[in-house]
Amino acid sequence: MSENKTLIEMGRRAKAASRKMAAASSADKDMALKAMARALTENQDGILAANKADVDAAESKGISRAMLDRLTLTPQRIAAMADGILEVAALRDPVGEIVEGIVRPNGLRVQKTRVPLGVVGIIYEARPNVTSDAAALCIKSGNAAILRGGKEAINSNIAIAGALRDGLKQYGLEDCVQIVEDTSRQTAAEMMRLRGYIDVLIPRGGAGLIRSVIENSTIPVIETGVGNCHVYIDKSADKDMAISITVNAKTSRPSVCNAAETLLVHQSAADLILPDLAGELKKAGVELRGCERTLKLLSGTDILPAAEEDWATEYLDYILAVRIVSSIDEAIEHITRYGSGHSECIVTGDYATAEKFVSQVDAAAVYINASTRFTDGGEFGMGAEIGISTQKLHARGPMGLRELTTTKFIVYGNGQVR
Amino acid sequence: MSENKTLIEMGRRAKAASRKMAAASSADKDMALKAMARALTENQDGILAANKADVDAAESKGISRAMLDRLTLTPQRIAAMADGILEVAALRDPVGEIVEGIVRPNGLRVQKTRVPLGVVGIIYEARPNVTSDAAALCIKSGNAAILRGGKEAINSNIAIAGALRDGLKQYGLEDCVQIVEDTSRQTAAEMMRLRGYIDVLIPRGGAGLIRSVIENSTIPVIETGVGNCHVYIDKSADKDMAISITVNAKTSRPSVCNAAETLLVHQSAADLILPDLAGELKKAGVELRGCERTLKLLSGTDILPAAEEDWATEYLDYILAVRIVSSIDEAIEHITRYGSGHSECIVTGDYATAEKFVSQVDAAAVYINASTRFTDGGEFGMGAEIGISTQKLHARGPMGLRELTTTKFIVYGNGQVR
Repeated sequence: MSENKTLIEMGRRAKAASRKMAAASSADKDMALKAMARALTENQDGILAANKADVDAAESKGISRAMLDRLTLTPQRIAAMADGILEVAALRDPVGEIVEGIVRPNGLRVQKTRVPLGVVGIIYEARPNVTSDAAALCIKSGNAAILRGGKEAINSNIAIAGALRDGLKQYGLEDCVQIVEDTSRQTAAEMMRLRGYIDVLIPRGGAGLIRSVIENSTIPVIETGVGNCHVYIDKSADKDMAISITVNAKTSRPSVCNAAETLLVHQSAADLILPDLAGELKKAGVELRGCERTLKLLSGTDILPAAEEDWATEYLDYILAVRIVSSIDEAIEHITRYGSGHSECIVTGDYATAEKFVSQVDAAAVYINASTRFTDGGEFGMGAEIGISTQKLHARGPMGLRELTTTKFIVYGNGQVR
Repeated sequence: MSENKTLIEMGRRAKAASRKMAAASSADKDMALKAMARALTENQDGILAANKADVDAAESKGISRAMLDRLTLTPQRIAAMADGILEVAALRDPVGEIVEGIVRPNGLRVQKTRVPLGVVGIIYEARPNVTSDAAALCIKSGNAAILRGGKEAINSNIAIAGALRDGLKQYGLEDCVQIVEDTSRQTAAEMMRLRGYIDVLIPRGGAGLIRSVIENSTIPVIETGVGNCHVYIDKSADKDMAISITVNAKTSRPSVCNAAETLLVHQSAADLILPDLAGELKKAGVELRGCERTLKLLSGTDILPAAEEDWATEYLDYILAVRIVSSIDEAIEHITRYGSGHSECIVTGDYATAEKFVSQVDAAAVYINASTRFTDGGEFGMGAEIGISTQKLHARGPMGLRELTTTKFIVYGNGQVR
């Protein structure tokens, strides 16, 4: 149990607010969301000023161009955040759904009913738009949120949360969005032990953050995000499709978790496909790191040798490890050993091979003849996502509004005893 | 990460076995379950001899009559265990169910498919029949199980697991049931950190065990069991129904988690109902511990005063705390403060009050006019249960076969890229 008084007080307020939220109708929640969107726009100047302080500090520390881009807000990006909230408002409210219902022989009516989780804690890293996205999803699903963003974006996050709270205040719901202003690791660790106040903790960020949460949290956790994803090109694969899927999976957005990191190629397909595929990847700026057989096949090109650690690495960059395998079994073994259980793809024309791959590969999403890049709440038709779960409990794969709820058995009787 | 070599080797075997199980058909699994049931009966003498060693040791240590009864096996109880396995075999296999399916505008077919969890770890206390029940549920749902029972039953557990493994051996599935023979706390703690080998950990036992697992586990946990359950008698309650439900909830089986521990009575119903109800409870051998108002109302009877800690205690015994409240809100507040989120009951004739109670009480099961004792997999129509979850992630309330599974998105494409 944490003894951090500020956090405990936040937890208390969140619990109280979550009870109000749980009783709110869909119409109430949508009004609150619209007010949040309006408040973002109205407070644009303040948010931009706060963001400028973060950006200046980051520049003076010399962070990477990519990080700086993710951190920077503009009027357009604030408008996009506001639009994002309105899109969440337009989604179907999951709360109240009767997931299952049965009348027992004794007349008891047992109804498994969808209800909010209560208080959701989210620990995330640089991007300030997560503050608004996560808050919107939590509120639409009837929860209160305690948000702890990274220190690089703390001024932006405080300004955004302040605006959202302004919007919520007219409904008395402002404590549904609270931000942890102290971004020390110590306070994050204490937040992970706020049992009894936070019902579920969702870390969003790199492998280090996820590991720390798993080691330290006494609150139930939903792991998200680490994606060491594979494309396996089977011997029966269509060449054009194999090239198109691999190039897309690697290069359409290398910095995200559903991008491919290792390419496995069946030895009978390697001669035909790999040289041209390597050429296309090179054209797209991808550095290749190959196994011995790959190096031999592509000798004369500037391919690098892959070390053992390459198979286990989520590059999140224009780098792809390449390995030639002797069979589908060797491919599945490789994925079992090195995969992170995120998204795995086979390109094949063979029915039995496809069936074997989807049944034996243990991952959140397994693809036949489609890019791993589709693992996404929007692409799966959920509307919006709070993250992609790589664990097996509660939710696996993209998590939408429904994954921010739990169920309650409501049992209607007329005096039944056992 | 644990460094216990024995455990890691068990984990490796379990992982390999779980992959075989995941590929097994329902028919295969049912044959394996039938073989397990037969093997229990065939090995009856050995199991009884092992159990006698446990019982003798327990007697010499002077454990309670109730504990001793739970520990003791007889030919009838072994036959009941075998029947239990056959009942599990007769249940519907949850694996392979398409939970949801959608065809996206680009033609991708996204199918959320039910798959086994993989390796399930179960840490439990005295009763040896859990070994067989848990193994059967894990196998029917396509999982491998690593079981760690209490030291009091270790000889019985080893003999039971040995018999089950005998039955599984003819299908090459014996490593789907493994038992941790070292019952030290140290080894239990190491089991809780067997990440990468155990996918989900389910503790079944007292509050101390559950707490230890939550503090120490780096594996996702499903909390089970602690039940500080309430019956609230509203002012509009029918007197006979209120008495019948309260007596049933407290006395039909006081040692289980869905038994009531505190009675709350609306002040306007107390005069009419409480004296007769107290009489019935006394007749059933229940000791009452009352708040000041209750003591006053029932003065002259041998009721004891309730201390603050009584409201928070799961007696699991013929003891009931009693409190008179001024309103439904005070009742809900009391339950929010002291309840463990298990099972809560209101006895009422008023529609709005009933609705308020079910919407504001945050528990796995909330009852209108029925005994809390119904929170049970069998009573809810699930057939059998592995435990009752009091957490909000993954499963809440009784957990049957389906709660021992997860899902996998299988995505069928024909070359789609993003």
